[in-house]
Amino acid sequence: MFDAAMQPYIEDPFFGSVERRIANAGEGSVSLGIKAARSVLETTGIAASEVDGLISVSMFPDRVGAGDAGYLAQALGTGGGAFSLEATCSGSMSALLTASSLVQSRLKERVLVVVVSMLSRAIDADDVTARLCGDAAAAFLVGPVEEGYGLLGSKTLQTGETCGTWLLDTVEEPEGTTAGGRRIRLRVDPTITHVLRATAKPYLVGTVEGALEAAQLKIDDIDVVVPNTPTAWHARFSADTLGLDPDRVVNTFPSVANIGPALMPVNTHLAAVEGRIKPGDRVLLYTFGGQAEAGAAVVRWPSVRLGPAHAGARTTLNSDGGNHA
Amino acid sequence: MFDAAMQPYIEDPFFGSVERRIANAGEGSVSLGIKAARSVLETTGIAASEVDGLISVSMFPDRVGAGDAGYLAQALGTGGGAFSLEATCSGSMSALLTASSLVQSRLKERVLVVVVSMLSRAIDADDVTARLCGDAAAAFLVGPVEEGYGLLGSKTLQTGETCGTWLLDTVEEPEGTTAGGRRIRLRVDPTITHVLRATAKPYLVGTVEGALEAAQLKIDDIDVVVPNTPTAWHARFSADTLGLDPDRVVNTFPSVANIGPALMPVNTHLAAVEGRIKPGDRVLLYTFGGQAEAGAAVVRWPSVRLGPAHAGARTTLNSDGGNHA
Repeated sequence: MFDAAMQPYIEDPFFGSVERRIANAGEGSVSLGIKAARSVLETTGIAASEVDGLISVSMFPDRVGAGDAGYLAQALGTGGGAFSLEATCSGSMSALLTASSLVQSRLKERVLVVVVSMLSRAIDADDVTARLCGDAAAAFLVGPVEEGYGLLGSKTLQTGETCGTWLLDTVEEPEGTTAGGRRIRLRVDPTITHVLRATAKPYLVGTVEGALEAAQLKIDDIDVVVPNTPTAWHARFSADTLGLDPDRVVNTFPSVANIGPALMPVNTHLAAVEGRIKPGDRVLLYTFGGQAEAGAAVVRWPSVRLGPAHAGARTTLNSDGGNHA
Repeated sequence: MFDAAMQPYIEDPFFGSVERRIANAGEGSVSLGIKAARSVLETTGIAASEVDGLISVSMFPDRVGAGDAGYLAQALGTGGGAFSLEATCSGSMSALLTASSLVQSRLKERVLVVVVSMLSRAIDADDVTARLCGDAAAAFLVGPVEEGYGLLGSKTLQTGETCGTWLLDTVEEPEGTTAGGRRIRLRVDPTITHVLRATAKPYLVGTVEGALEAAQLKIDDIDVVVPNTPTAWHARFSADTLGLDPDRVVNTFPSVANIGPALMPVNTHLAAVEGRIKPGDRVLLYTFGGQAEAGAAVVRWPSVRLGPAHAGARTTLNSDGGNHA
């Protein structure tokens, strides 16, 4: 199914990529994250001081060697603690589950998650992978919801089998948007297609079945599926693998391309802004992060205040939107 | 109180440091972490597959730009997911609270936390700071405990005020113990003493008061205090600030020096192995992480299986052990 879904795009030099967005010159992970976080605080009417926990997910942060948590907390003036979490492209799911459990166990009242993708800084401009990668920031606030709403079940699986597939080193950063004069560079090992082909289905099926079981639901009870869409074919692949009508699967790849850990919050946000996700809907979220974990969550969509979506970005029905020809 | 506690050590070229341990040549954060994790699994009799979540805290990990989670999970064969968490020297507290809330909220049954300090790799050998910094690995398993035991209350505060105090860059790593040919280098800004003098007390008092309030206890109800001991004077400073007899405060600095995020688990483990912490005791833990968060937790010590302590390391009563002259 992976190959079949990929087939329409392999002759395309852009691999199905249509639009992508990259950060302005001089923009860093902290400055992007601050904008997203302020938009959430403004939309929800919650003061920064009422936040009692901040989780920062930045791929990759401004300081090579440490996350953005303290810098974001300082700029925003949030109350409570602040730490950084890293699970490559699954970081937003790990943070959502962590924030939900901190709230459910009453260790925290209200956790702000700030997710930033700075892939344009991490991937050399002449690397073919850059054509399908974009920058984005997203933020969401996790707090108590009405009984029966919010997180119903989840399941995560470690993705250690993919270790060695993504290669990290550092190169000079003459623009000075990172501290220390160098930036993280991300490249892929030539084995990547084989590794992803072999693992994509077991991670998707294993986490989704686990999350549905924890939620005591069947796949047919799900109204909308929001998978991670790092390529043009992942939405179709997800629909086919789960045996779903592609119309139930959100695909933002044509609008935003691969935005790493920001995929899950941005895809979900766009779908909700467009009315594809409505309060009471049962939403299945899926993310995959190489060399860390994959995760699925079933959420009964509560009454959520939504900030504005980036102009022009939209969710497409997978059945036509996955093909940009 | 900070100055008074520091006074005995400022003329000492080693700042009160007595012993420190550094990793063997070729040893990296993943290999050290695996040893600690295997020891925990062996001690507890829990199979790796029975773990359903792994949290990795490495300062600093083998791959510059990503954490060790996937590599540890792969080597250990753990079940469930795996992500990395970073809160500088407070990472183990952030991971303990996260693991506890994942278990309390029933998202996970059993979370393995693996904490590694590789400060000898991060600090240049001719940097005076290296004299008080060591390497260490620690691991602990978080699962359900008897009613009334385990985490009773906690409080975290962001430490954004300390941003800019620790400086990170990358330098060549000819030994090849990191991927990508370079290692993270950690240095301190000359303002560090001023910043720590101004912030040490509010972070300690603010988190401890919050944790005691959440646990509905008073400081006099606490049997043992395990503070972070990154310097020779921090245990005495903590006792004086909290108005406690120094004998109730654990100090491992003379044995292990500053081992970054590993301070909390190693200090607690040594105190428990020595019998200073016994089942039923109310233990107050405190950690401080620059540019991230500080945290305090009150734990009613459950029945815990303890692995062996490193030969020679011991907790000292602060009243005499803090002074090595």
